[in-house]
Amino acid sequence: MRRIVIIGFESAGLTAASAARMVDRTAEITVIERRPYAIYHPCGIPFAIGGEIKNIQKLIEPAPALPNVDVRTATEATVIDTSKKVVEVSSLKTSKRETLEYDSLILATGSYAFKPPIPGIELEGVHVVKTVEDGQAIIEALERTKNAVVVGAGPIGIETSAALRKRGLNVSVVEMLPSVLPGMLDPDMADPLTQRLRDKGIQVLCGRSLKEIRGEGNVKSVVAGEEELPAGLVIIAAGVKPEVKLAKEADIELGETGGVKVDDHLRTSAPDVYAAGDCAENFCPITKQPVLSQLATTAIRMGWVASTNAAGGDETYAGTLNTVVTCAYGLVVASTGVTTQVAKKAGFAPISARARVMSRPRYYPGAEPIIIKLLAKSDGHNLIGGQVLGTEGAAERANLLALAIQKGMTAEELAKIEYCHAPPVNDAIEPLVVAAEAMLRRL
Amino acid sequence: MRRIVIIGFESAGLTAASAARMVDRTAEITVIERRPYAIYHPCGIPFAIGGEIKNIQKLIEPAPALPNVDVRTATEATVIDTSKKVVEVSSLKTSKRETLEYDSLILATGSYAFKPPIPGIELEGVHVVKTVEDGQAIIEALERTKNAVVVGAGPIGIETSAALRKRGLNVSVVEMLPSVLPGMLDPDMADPLTQRLRDKGIQVLCGRSLKEIRGEGNVKSVVAGEEELPAGLVIIAAGVKPEVKLAKEADIELGETGGVKVDDHLRTSAPDVYAAGDCAENFCPITKQPVLSQLATTAIRMGWVASTNAAGGDETYAGTLNTVVTCAYGLVVASTGVTTQVAKKAGFAPISARARVMSRPRYYPGAEPIIIKLLAKSDGHNLIGGQVLGTEGAAERANLLALAIQKGMTAEELAKIEYCHAPPVNDAIEPLVVAAEAMLRRL
Repeated sequence: MRRIVIIGFESAGLTAASAARMVDRTAEITVIERRPYAIYHPCGIPFAIGGEIKNIQKLIEPAPALPNVDVRTATEATVIDTSKKVVEVSSLKTSKRETLEYDSLILATGSYAFKPPIPGIELEGVHVVKTVEDGQAIIEALERTKNAVVVGAGPIGIETSAALRKRGLNVSVVEMLPSVLPGMLDPDMADPLTQRLRDKGIQVLCGRSLKEIRGEGNVKSVVAGEEELPAGLVIIAAGVKPEVKLAKEADIELGETGGVKVDDHLRTSAPDVYAAGDCAENFCPITKQPVLSQLATTAIRMGWVASTNAAGGDETYAGTLNTVVTCAYGLVVASTGVTTQVAKKAGFAPISARARVMSRPRYYPGAEPIIIKLLAKSDGHNLIGGQVLGTEGAAERANLLALAIQKGMTAEELAKIEYCHAPPVNDAIEPLVVAAEAMLRRL
Repeated sequence: MRRIVIIGFESAGLTAASAARMVDRTAEITVIERRPYAIYHPCGIPFAIGGEIKNIQKLIEPAPALPNVDVRTATEATVIDTSKKVVEVSSLKTSKRETLEYDSLILATGSYAFKPPIPGIELEGVHVVKTVEDGQAIIEALERTKNAVVVGAGPIGIETSAALRKRGLNVSVVEMLPSVLPGMLDPDMADPLTQRLRDKGIQVLCGRSLKEIRGEGNVKSVVAGEEELPAGLVIIAAGVKPEVKLAKEADIELGETGGVKVDDHLRTSAPDVYAAGDCAENFCPITKQPVLSQLATTAIRMGWVASTNAAGGDETYAGTLNTVVTCAYGLVVASTGVTTQVAKKAGFAPISARARVMSRPRYYPGAEPIIIKLLAKSDGHNLIGGQVLGTEGAAERANLLALAIQKGMTAEELAKIEYCHAPPVNDAIEPLVVAAEAMLRRL
């Protein structure tokens, strides 16, 4: 009977448990999770802060009913011995220690919110947006201040800025890079979102680095660039880092990104040890470079692959295009593949085109703009990136572009895809086709 | 200088004119159109009847500014001589006749609404939904009756039924086949739409054929199956037929579907004569059978291919999956590829799976169901059909499935597509993936 141990029970760990259960019906599966509760949904936290989700406790769920999967919450894995193939675990409630033997081990330890090492980072009122407890603390802090500064304009930073603004705070969002959502969007595509945030009264400050947080006990202000911004609440949304302490201590190899290094079967350098999700290094099939993904959707796919292999199956992992979506004030922003900056850094000289298309025919009411940017290789015109903004259909169009990129499709082929049309739903020419045609006209 | 003549100026003809202009910048392009106005949007007519489009005249547009394209409205092509390569045209205003020489001719003559040859079909109050004039006549008739019968539950029949109901009429929709949208949906997938129509007070009568329309001068009732339904307004939405009179008289070969037969370059049997859009026969790349498509989106793609070839380029046409979307009362219904019935008729023994997924995570408000049915070959599991119902994202998901089918993707591959997630936009597992996994579990 195969013994599978999974460390961590978020998207990767949960999927790994389900997959292992399906692939090997007799395996003994044990999940080790530090949290006192089983499942939670970190992506929901900004929307609990904003009040769309009325009760943040709704983000916590019991473990799903997986037959013969032993989920041990409030339990910490303290040591992995890859030669003896054992994991030492310790109950956070009773301090009881135990040694679990494994045939296959899956590291799904996730990530932690990065806090830049600057003065004042440990002041009261400085929060990250990672756990339900973080979210709860931010909600409680809403009463105590009128001014919030959000550091980082990635998806979490944008969503949290909008949430705090909805709750009536004066909000500034500070981004070191020149535009918002820098990992997702080229600067020209970021403009409509920046404008919408500003229209709603959010101060968007790009190209400024966080220098210092000031206060005594409680935070009083944030120094960003040359400016001092008053702040009773500071949100650090500067990204997450792979949680690799256990792996490192067990001499499991890390990659250059800091994530656990894995091969195409998500095997680590240690025999029968796999890694999946935020803790693992990923790779970009376009640039062939190692990357971090740190998306729930990536973790789900990786958890599936790692666990299928851990349970005796044979699945390969094809990397990630980091297909991602975020939204604020009804504007949905989605992207897949590489941005112009990433493409150039990887040695491509990408061609690009942008189209702004209305979501309905001009004769039908309620049309909203959809803005699409496509990137392709100058040689061969294979698509390598897509950025989509709109009130509807942006996520689904990014998903189609992800498939198109994976299939090696060219701009010429995208211009010929088959699609459907009805006036209340969309216009007679699909926006992705309009964007592809715009690219072809520029060749 | 190449002389290109295009007969017909709807989706195929309009696209053909644009494509010809782009491919051959010096060609002399002439468009012959019987209507007194250039462009109109037939897909919008049901929504003008329903009042979403306030003024039906908005569906008419002037010809777009295409340099050196001579658009002759109110002009009829009366004879094609394929040996002399000429078209006789006649002005409907002045009766002036003219002979146009062509190097390439594109037939984009469209279709006409089919009227079943039954007693009473020519009574006053019996309408089709094809032209702006038809729509105008129906809108004027709304005042004169309380009872409408719609014959045919295809997209136009469904959209028109909802439109008439919104205008306060008692509406019955009569369909000969056992369920609504029979060309798009398997009967089990049609149920949620039937239910929604019934909830809104529309009488849905499937499995009944139209026998007779009764009245004296004006329509009084419709006999459908064994029942006599009172009706002051009857809408015949029993499909369209290819408009092939000119082609037939010119001895251009027709296919078994009644459309003009074309090859993979959309060439007809006559030299340098092409056909595109509703008048042309199409083919299904799954069953390899000739089909009719008669969608604006198909006409656009065909117009592009035919005209590129007519102007000296080289484009092939890959057939159509008849990707189509309709909607009623906020429920969007989209499909692509074959239904179970069509698949079986073509000799496949398809496997299928159905999934009902919520559009948002359970912790986020506003979730609506998305229902997906997938069909695949039992051998190899290549996808051959997809049906999607939902309030959002149904059309875009059908488009992704169309691409997946064209790329020969299997259910296994669909289960692994990359997609994005954010709580206000969608749930963490893409509904298409849930449906694919449901199929895999049944294998």
